[in-house]
Amino acid sequence: MPIVSLDRLQELATRALTRAGADFDMAAATARALVYADARGLASHGVSRIPQYAVHLSNGRADGNARPKVVAAKGGAALVDAGFGLAYPACALAVHESIRRARDFGVAFAGVTNSHHFGAAGYHLEAVGAAGLVGLAFGNSPAAISAAGGRRPIFGTNPIAAIFPRPKAASLLVDLSLSETARGKLMIAAKEGKPIPLGWALDKNGNPTTDPGAGLEGSMLALGGNKGAMLALVVELLVTALTGAAIGCEATSFFVDEGNRPRLGQAFLVIDPAALAGRAVYDERIEALVAAITEDPALRLPGERRDALANAAANEGVEIPAALHRQLTELAGEG
Amino acid sequence: MPIVSLDRLQELATRALTRAGADFDMAAATARALVYADARGLASHGVSRIPQYAVHLSNGRADGNARPKVVAAKGGAALVDAGFGLAYPACALAVHESIRRARDFGVAFAGVTNSHHFGAAGYHLEAVGAAGLVGLAFGNSPAAISAAGGRRPIFGTNPIAAIFPRPKAASLLVDLSLSETARGKLMIAAKEGKPIPLGWALDKNGNPTTDPGAGLEGSMLALGGNKGAMLALVVELLVTALTGAAIGCEATSFFVDEGNRPRLGQAFLVIDPAALAGRAVYDERIEALVAAITEDPALRLPGERRDALANAAANEGVEIPAALHRQLTELAGEG
Repeated sequence: MPIVSLDRLQELATRALTRAGADFDMAAATARALVYADARGLASHGVSRIPQYAVHLSNGRADGNARPKVVAAKGGAALVDAGFGLAYPACALAVHESIRRARDFGVAFAGVTNSHHFGAAGYHLEAVGAAGLVGLAFGNSPAAISAAGGRRPIFGTNPIAAIFPRPKAASLLVDLSLSETARGKLMIAAKEGKPIPLGWALDKNGNPTTDPGAGLEGSMLALGGNKGAMLALVVELLVTALTGAAIGCEATSFFVDEGNRPRLGQAFLVIDPAALAGRAVYDERIEALVAAITEDPALRLPGERRDALANAAANEGVEIPAALHRQLTELAGEG
Repeated sequence: MPIVSLDRLQELATRALTRAGADFDMAAATARALVYADARGLASHGVSRIPQYAVHLSNGRADGNARPKVVAAKGGAALVDAGFGLAYPACALAVHESIRRARDFGVAFAGVTNSHHFGAAGYHLEAVGAAGLVGLAFGNSPAAISAAGGRRPIFGTNPIAAIFPRPKAASLLVDLSLSETARGKLMIAAKEGKPIPLGWALDKNGNPTTDPGAGLEGSMLALGGNKGAMLALVVELLVTALTGAAIGCEATSFFVDEGNRPRLGQAFLVIDPAALAGRAVYDERIEALVAAITEDPALRLPGERRDALANAAANEGVEIPAALHRQLTELAGEG
């Protein structure tokens, strides 16, 4: 597999997206998020998405000239309309608003509507951690998980991410989807023609399957069964009822070319520790928890492994599958 | 088993708690929360807790004369100090603050520190739903769940609850712990001398067990494995780092008489739909989601079954195990 430096990958991705119809800001913001994911071993949320985004930009499922706008705001709350563009510029604006508002009002909640795939949820929180604030991110996706006891997918895989900055160390970063596994892993397995383990997905008739294609047409199993499905419902309502975005089952899959504008939703919660027990207490408490975990030397802190991968990738670049690399250079007009 | 009306149960519980040392407000607030749980089939969070609370009030693990206070506040954020009392008056104050502040600032986050067991997390959100607002509740508990990959319990079972009011129907109410099952169920099984299923708990050496007592001394398995443990970490930090409360592994178990003041933490997030996409959009979106779920007539909405139980209990009372009933009447001075 070709090894590509992160700078080169950023350039290639930006060029591919601008040629597909995204304006430069949208292309560069999107490329940054995708390269971030590839650098952290999250290939399913990395530049492997570009061919899909490029089709959506070309056929109108995503508007490459959209400009996100704050369309409602009050105190700590704000709503950003992504204008049917790719999600990244809108999420960046929502995060910017929520950081600013959390500083003024102690806590902020910014929603995003009329949006698209927002990639690795944790990416958006890096700016929150860098500002010394606590952040949570939520998003929905085209329907993947059924309601508790149901067969038909209604909710997305609905990631939850959280960042907790530490005084003199990298932030703790949690990022997980509420499906037993990420839908992107089924897409990768389908592309590579590999089977998936039982317990990841059901086919469209509600039967367990090892065929990733059948799983993508069916539904994903929720984390821990009914409890996971209930958490998926909570995330779904946070990002749709409060924002006006589409419910998972109203959005056409990302994994097909044709379909509607997905109109998905995202939301960011930001809290300033200084407004509650204060920074000194926060710092002491988080270090006490870290000490309790790392008492067992075998345990790793959330985000630690990905930070190490990112450091290595910054020096050595990342491996990109040859077929994808060819596709990207073609999309970038270098083919 | 004796059948007891809810009014009678409230009276009995209040009297038992005041005789154990709680002032009337604390006793009545606590009794209301416990009776609410019994009425909804949640016996493990109901009046079965009173003998334990009574011991804690008697031996000083809980202060029956504590008065909760708002000790820090800024915009939408507030911190309540429970003063080592039972949790219920402090949670009621935090919920009151968060409703008021969400109306003023769009979103509010109120933490509680120096607290105790807060029972059924969803109970506290009923006032949020009645105010037409969206609410989430979080809490920790004495250590029960290990960090991802660990053997020693660090985090509590760390419930997450959420309420979403509907325009012309009962609110949707989700309430779940992040352990594969509730710790209270192990306590009930231990009291009744019944085994528990494999997959609920590990013993203190990290081995699977069917003995509820061994499970209570060991650790609970998290919902869905490592992902559940990561969610437990997020809740743990929200309710401790932001509030100054004790981490689960710093608090002595509730299930023993002697021990420290648990100093646990809780937090409530309240969001006003009117501050984001607006009430009309919120109402339309939540009904669209409800319609998608109830298209399958076999599926029930979250909270629906418990609401039905509560309606029946209001008319017919609830069954209380004979031994517990005897204990309550004795504690109430009627024995």
